[in-house]
Amino acid sequence: MKEPFIPAERKITVIGGGTGSFTLLSSLKDYTSQIAALVNMADDGGSTGVLRDELGALPPGDVRQCLVALSESPKVRDLFNYRFEEGSLKGHAFGNLFLTALEKMTGDFADGVELASEVLGVRGAVAPITLSNVKLVMTKNDGSEVRGEFEITDTNFQGERPHFRLDPTAEPNPVALRAIETADMVVIAPGNLYGSLAPALIVPGIGEALRKTKAAKVYVCNLMTKPGQTDNFSVNDFATEIERLAGGEFLDAVLYNTKKPADTLVNKYSDEGEKTVRYDSDALRNAHYLAIGTNLVSGSAWQNGSASDPIAASRTFIRHDSVAVANALIRLYDYIDEKKR
Amino acid sequence: MKEPFIPAERKITVIGGGTGSFTLLSSLKDYTSQIAALVNMADDGGSTGVLRDELGALPPGDVRQCLVALSESPKVRDLFNYRFEEGSLKGHAFGNLFLTALEKMTGDFADGVELASEVLGVRGAVAPITLSNVKLVMTKNDGSEVRGEFEITDTNFQGERPHFRLDPTAEPNPVALRAIETADMVVIAPGNLYGSLAPALIVPGIGEALRKTKAAKVYVCNLMTKPGQTDNFSVNDFATEIERLAGGEFLDAVLYNTKKPADTLVNKYSDEGEKTVRYDSDALRNAHYLAIGTNLVSGSAWQNGSASDPIAASRTFIRHDSVAVANALIRLYDYIDEKKR
Repeated sequence: MKEPFIPAERKITVIGGGTGSFTLLSSLKDYTSQIAALVNMADDGGSTGVLRDELGALPPGDVRQCLVALSESPKVRDLFNYRFEEGSLKGHAFGNLFLTALEKMTGDFADGVELASEVLGVRGAVAPITLSNVKLVMTKNDGSEVRGEFEITDTNFQGERPHFRLDPTAEPNPVALRAIETADMVVIAPGNLYGSLAPALIVPGIGEALRKTKAAKVYVCNLMTKPGQTDNFSVNDFATEIERLAGGEFLDAVLYNTKKPADTLVNKYSDEGEKTVRYDSDALRNAHYLAIGTNLVSGSAWQNGSASDPIAASRTFIRHDSVAVANALIRLYDYIDEKKR
Repeated sequence: MKEPFIPAERKITVIGGGTGSFTLLSSLKDYTSQIAALVNMADDGGSTGVLRDELGALPPGDVRQCLVALSESPKVRDLFNYRFEEGSLKGHAFGNLFLTALEKMTGDFADGVELASEVLGVRGAVAPITLSNVKLVMTKNDGSEVRGEFEITDTNFQGERPHFRLDPTAEPNPVALRAIETADMVVIAPGNLYGSLAPALIVPGIGEALRKTKAAKVYVCNLMTKPGQTDNFSVNDFATEIERLAGGEFLDAVLYNTKKPADTLVNKYSDEGEKTVRYDSDALRNAHYLAIGTNLVSGSAWQNGSASDPIAASRTFIRHDSVAVANALIRLYDYIDEKKR
């Protein structure tokens, strides 16, 4: 673990779920033990989807990833990510079964997360942003609906910025509200804008809590656009959507990448319809939030296509350098903090 | 936990697996933390059987039960015994999935048992008696074979005392051999004679270790006979079979029950073909082992049919009083120890 170079431990709350949160948490936990991960609860694909369908369980997948990111026990971490490869258990991540077994046994998903945290030796805390068993629902301009995160992720929005809701209406987890209220910094993690961040930000009460808290609120912007959903989005487009989903302005700062990836890699992504996120420095200077551009991409990603991190390698080759992002966040916090004083 | 009334902690090693071991361990662990449970590895029914068939895993079921018996964490204990009730996971005990996931991940079942012990806060240690992936095979007098513990448990022996072997040949777990060698007392737990004890006692090297160790070796005799297999067995018949399976005499003492259960209960069992195990005090006085008869049955079992212990309640109503057995074992050990000095 790195030596913390900050005088007092900050309370940092990260909102998201999925790979973006995983990367951020893995390295932020070296700077503070006062870290809380708030996780969206709308995932309904893969192993998680099967457990929801067959057992009526709350979605364990993203919670598991955040727990693993904050775990200090390499052996248990590997165990939680282990996926059965054969038979009727095929595809299930062990950690998902752990969380689901405890939820079904006690009838309380939060209990499962707490016990898993103990077992994993987690630094900080992981909390579902809601404990309601909900599905993400998208309404297009023509009134038609798409139900479920898994379906929505594959939908072409055709240029629309659709309306999103959770069905049934979600209650915010009081623990999540408190983590936003008492934080020194709240970070909106990069990640799937409509699949991971929307279902977290639209939980009733979360947007209000974000606007009320005295914490510094920072969004770490995505590196790449998603075809059919965020095509041609700029940094400000992402930030604006984040605030629209949360029901109003709340961001103090947006952290974005300025280093252009190597052409070969950009071309490879381009073939899949994914482009690097545009930024216009002049326009960002006039934004209501502080926009900080710097080199945030993983060095290893430029040298070769495969990264040592298996999750990163399987999901994306152009990815955030988690240490660079954590460093930038801490510097940014100091700057905002000084300005406030 | 009860105050230990013994001056120094004894090293006690229990051989078996299944409910008999569970009961014994649950209460012996209050007398010593130097406790080792050696578990047979031939189980191939239920959730365990599915994991063996589909994943080629070693049988986790009996190991799980012993881990749970020695655990000091009620919450994790309940979790390990939790069985999924619906969908494709139906019937699987969570602890079985835990042990199997770790075995498949690391390729080492013993690693899984060790990590599970940590997570469960186990007092003492649980060790598979062999790490070979084996099936129990029974050969009848006519040369025909029955393969697998699950099949054998349902077979009528028609008065024979068949030959048993493990296929392929098992290697003894060195940890198990050491636990027998260094123990002050080795207890053969009550339980399914041919289904649970045979596959432990016939592992090559185990019988020899039992004959070589300086430990006091005690067999806690079953309360009831099993129809088609141990019909009309006396205490001495059970003890003789135990020694035949282990390849020769080794017992210092046999502990057996002398209290006759209430007629109503005995009749209920009798309807299923199960009888209380006979004992002939005069004959036992001439046995090569010390035979100690006393009241070993659970008091609650006499008052009503249901016990508070769900495992006991689901499997048997006439059962050992685990505290009475533990007390008798400790007194017996002192007696043998004094005689030796």
